[in-house]
Amino acid sequence: MIPVRHCLKLVPLCSQIRHGSRMFPQLKRGSFNRITDEDVNRFTGIVGETGIKTEELDHYNTDWLNTVSGFTELVISPKSVEEVAAVLRHCNERRLAVVPQGGNTGLVGGSNPVFDEIVLSLERLNNISHIDPYAGIVECEAGVILQNLSDKVGEHGYTVPLDLGARGSCFIGGNLATHAGGLRVVRYGQLRGSVLGMRVVLPDGQILDGRSNMRKDNTGYDIKQLFIGSEGTLGVITDVSLLLPQSPVSVNMALLGCDSFDDVIKCYRLSRQCLGEIVSACEFMDSLCMTSVNDILGLASPLENSHKFYYLVETSGMNMDHDMEKLETCIEKVFESGCATDGVMAASKDQARHMMSLRENIAPALKAVGFNYKYDVSLPIQHMYSLVEQVKHVLRDVPGSKVGAYGHVAEGDVHFNPITPQFDPLALSLIEPFVYEEVSRLKGSISAEHGMGLKKANYLRYSKDPSMIAMMRSLKDVFDPNGIMNPYKLLPWND
Amino acid sequence: MIPVRHCLKLVPLCSQIRHGSRMFPQLKRGSFNRITDEDVNRFTGIVGETGIKTEELDHYNTDWLNTVSGFTELVISPKSVEEVAAVLRHCNERRLAVVPQGGNTGLVGGSNPVFDEIVLSLERLNNISHIDPYAGIVECEAGVILQNLSDKVGEHGYTVPLDLGARGSCFIGGNLATHAGGLRVVRYGQLRGSVLGMRVVLPDGQILDGRSNMRKDNTGYDIKQLFIGSEGTLGVITDVSLLLPQSPVSVNMALLGCDSFDDVIKCYRLSRQCLGEIVSACEFMDSLCMTSVNDILGLASPLENSHKFYYLVETSGMNMDHDMEKLETCIEKVFESGCATDGVMAASKDQARHMMSLRENIAPALKAVGFNYKYDVSLPIQHMYSLVEQVKHVLRDVPGSKVGAYGHVAEGDVHFNPITPQFDPLALSLIEPFVYEEVSRLKGSISAEHGMGLKKANYLRYSKDPSMIAMMRSLKDVFDPNGIMNPYKLLPWND
Repeated sequence: MIPVRHCLKLVPLCSQIRHGSRMFPQLKRGSFNRITDEDVNRFTGIVGETGIKTEELDHYNTDWLNTVSGFTELVISPKSVEEVAAVLRHCNERRLAVVPQGGNTGLVGGSNPVFDEIVLSLERLNNISHIDPYAGIVECEAGVILQNLSDKVGEHGYTVPLDLGARGSCFIGGNLATHAGGLRVVRYGQLRGSVLGMRVVLPDGQILDGRSNMRKDNTGYDIKQLFIGSEGTLGVITDVSLLLPQSPVSVNMALLGCDSFDDVIKCYRLSRQCLGEIVSACEFMDSLCMTSVNDILGLASPLENSHKFYYLVETSGMNMDHDMEKLETCIEKVFESGCATDGVMAASKDQARHMMSLRENIAPALKAVGFNYKYDVSLPIQHMYSLVEQVKHVLRDVPGSKVGAYGHVAEGDVHFNPITPQFDPLALSLIEPFVYEEVSRLKGSISAEHGMGLKKANYLRYSKDPSMIAMMRSLKDVFDPNGIMNPYKLLPWND
Repeated sequence: MIPVRHCLKLVPLCSQIRHGSRMFPQLKRGSFNRITDEDVNRFTGIVGETGIKTEELDHYNTDWLNTVSGFTELVISPKSVEEVAAVLRHCNERRLAVVPQGGNTGLVGGSNPVFDEIVLSLERLNNISHIDPYAGIVECEAGVILQNLSDKVGEHGYTVPLDLGARGSCFIGGNLATHAGGLRVVRYGQLRGSVLGMRVVLPDGQILDGRSNMRKDNTGYDIKQLFIGSEGTLGVITDVSLLLPQSPVSVNMALLGCDSFDDVIKCYRLSRQCLGEIVSACEFMDSLCMTSVNDILGLASPLENSHKFYYLVETSGMNMDHDMEKLETCIEKVFESGCATDGVMAASKDQARHMMSLRENIAPALKAVGFNYKYDVSLPIQHMYSLVEQVKHVLRDVPGSKVGAYGHVAEGDVHFNPITPQFDPLALSLIEPFVYEEVSRLKGSISAEHGMGLKKANYLRYSKDPSMIAMMRSLKDVFDPNGIMNPYKLLPWND
């Protein structure tokens, strides 16, 4: 077994770092003040010496993909909500720009500085305050690593309604700030549906206290929802309460080989019909993804033959016999209908883990193939792969170009990575804005789960009506009138 | 069988109407203009004669409970989003106050006028625009009646992830504006999690177009979430896209008799353990509720004996054999543990419907017992009934007083109705603010699912921190600077 994505932070596979400001040469630094010694002294007075870093900041300056980097000279790591408030209050008074940072595992350059913004790291706010074993609710601080949270609530028979490859590094606060998607949306719904309460610090240092453990609470506007997915541009999430599903008693998995994406869709539909409430993941990958994972990372496919597409379905339920019977019936129907020509069910937890690791290691495997132009779009299911075919077509004359695609079938969320041997501006100009125009034409989303960050901010108009963008700006002005919170991110800066 | 709540609109059981302004004598009409003939002409020009009503307006002026009434002289029913926009633009320019109104089935006086506000009825915006049978998504207008929506998507094998007693009258737009709860939250989560897109008209006539059918879409702030639960105070929801769960193949139900609320909790926990993913309702009622439904409405209990409490559990799944086996195992464990002393499983759809009708007819049955002071609070599950006991205690010397309680166990949502023979100001002074203070002390919600409306607006501080209330006011000012949208509702007006 090869470690999954969460370890890759330590060993970047690709070193094509481009400074945010170089990636977008037309992007100018905002009219923020520069940090003085007096500011550093002030911050040290708030968080103490151990909460201040001014050296060896590469890890904070550069994104996980090693594609965007800023040049902050100051990282502040508060230990309490009051310290976060005091830090932000000073930043706001002094017009110092701030990037809130969780595990820094984002894929759109949203969590690292572009210029010299101060990094406000949540890494020391990592307390799991309380687990209610009866109600299935966890209260914790924003800097808790997802895997740690998952392990801890697992001891009480619960699971976190969110799972993704970066689980070993990402913070729950960052998951909320970016509204992370991942593997379990088909089962537990979008993350925002599981958030019961939240405490947030506003840029002026006000603490917005929306902590609550109530499963139903219709007392006024649900303001926390605005912060979920706001990517640190409105304030800093410091505490959260989450509703937890019970840990499943049985988890089963099957991997099927298909000849076409239409067959993947047929497999998906049969699995929804047969498996109903126990479906917990519906993933696909194309042949380039599978061969890259096999050849580059040495993770063997459990299927004997190669296929154009692979469909992976997971079930999680409370009764092993019932779940196995449902999955077996499903596989039978799949083969009867001819929409898969090959398939295997995991016979043990290890085999299931191995199958899922094939899916989870696609991103690092493709990165080793060449320079990846990353897209994460949602589309009506029938168009998920036709867009990939179109991109292959527009790149047909670019030497050495390839496209690998995979994703979450149930949500129409396709991750596709056009790849060239090196970064190629011509290839990029063929892909963009073509991809965004097509997604817009199909009424899809140009960012299904990764968010806008720096990289996609200027493309917001392809997924949002001008009326919505104007309202987003109005709301940004309400929460952050001085614009110090994560500038250049989420909202377009080129107009 | 007796018709359930949705029919009661036509036959009010109680006629203690109190004008909103009489209920709160200190509430003064806002400085809005009064409607002139010129205004009516202008509105007629926008929506046509058939969209204007100036007579026989009781139904629009009075709430479903017949406890709050205003005295509007004008009801406008637009047929399109453009007409809604033109109407609101004129109201905003002329400073005319507006109440958006759906099915007018709310329980907190939120959907009817308090003084002479114009009623903007969504009743003619009732088109089900599109059902995507593959993706399981419905697009419709706000004025579609929940039951009609449910029937229509049922033809395609889907169900609406929301169900409540008022299904035959309430509109889906009102369900969203009030973030209706109901019976299925334990299974499908809160309604806001199923909303994919929404179009809203702002008070100034701007159309905020957030229509989308994407299951994942992380492109900026999720502004629609602010309108969900805003009770018409920020704008008017005109269109919505909802994600639909598959219709279950098998629905089963059991009713258990318990000697104490602790036993109800034990039954609930066992049912979650044994039934896991197929649980679709976990309801309780106390003896007063059961006897009222039996005696007043003639709906017989299927249990031979009377009990202090009743626990009703419903399952919805894709495999009848599996589901029955799970439910039977559950009931066995319940009896083994001794937490229920009696119980019955529904052997047919009719029996299941009858069991559920016992639960759904509690509200009308209790109303016939006397004057109901209605509360809908959420609490940690272990405190759900102890608060009811406390209220019984404080009312012990009030002649003829009773308290009936029922609700949704999984969400800690208890509906309890103190009852006196007639409205009794002394009783009310014993109950309030006592109930709100207790709920606040227990960190519960003073409105689990009914919302704030007119009746609870001034109690917001018991569930929301001052920082949250201040931010709500700021947001209200952004969306509705002239304050014309549903004044006196949701936000406190007494400070």
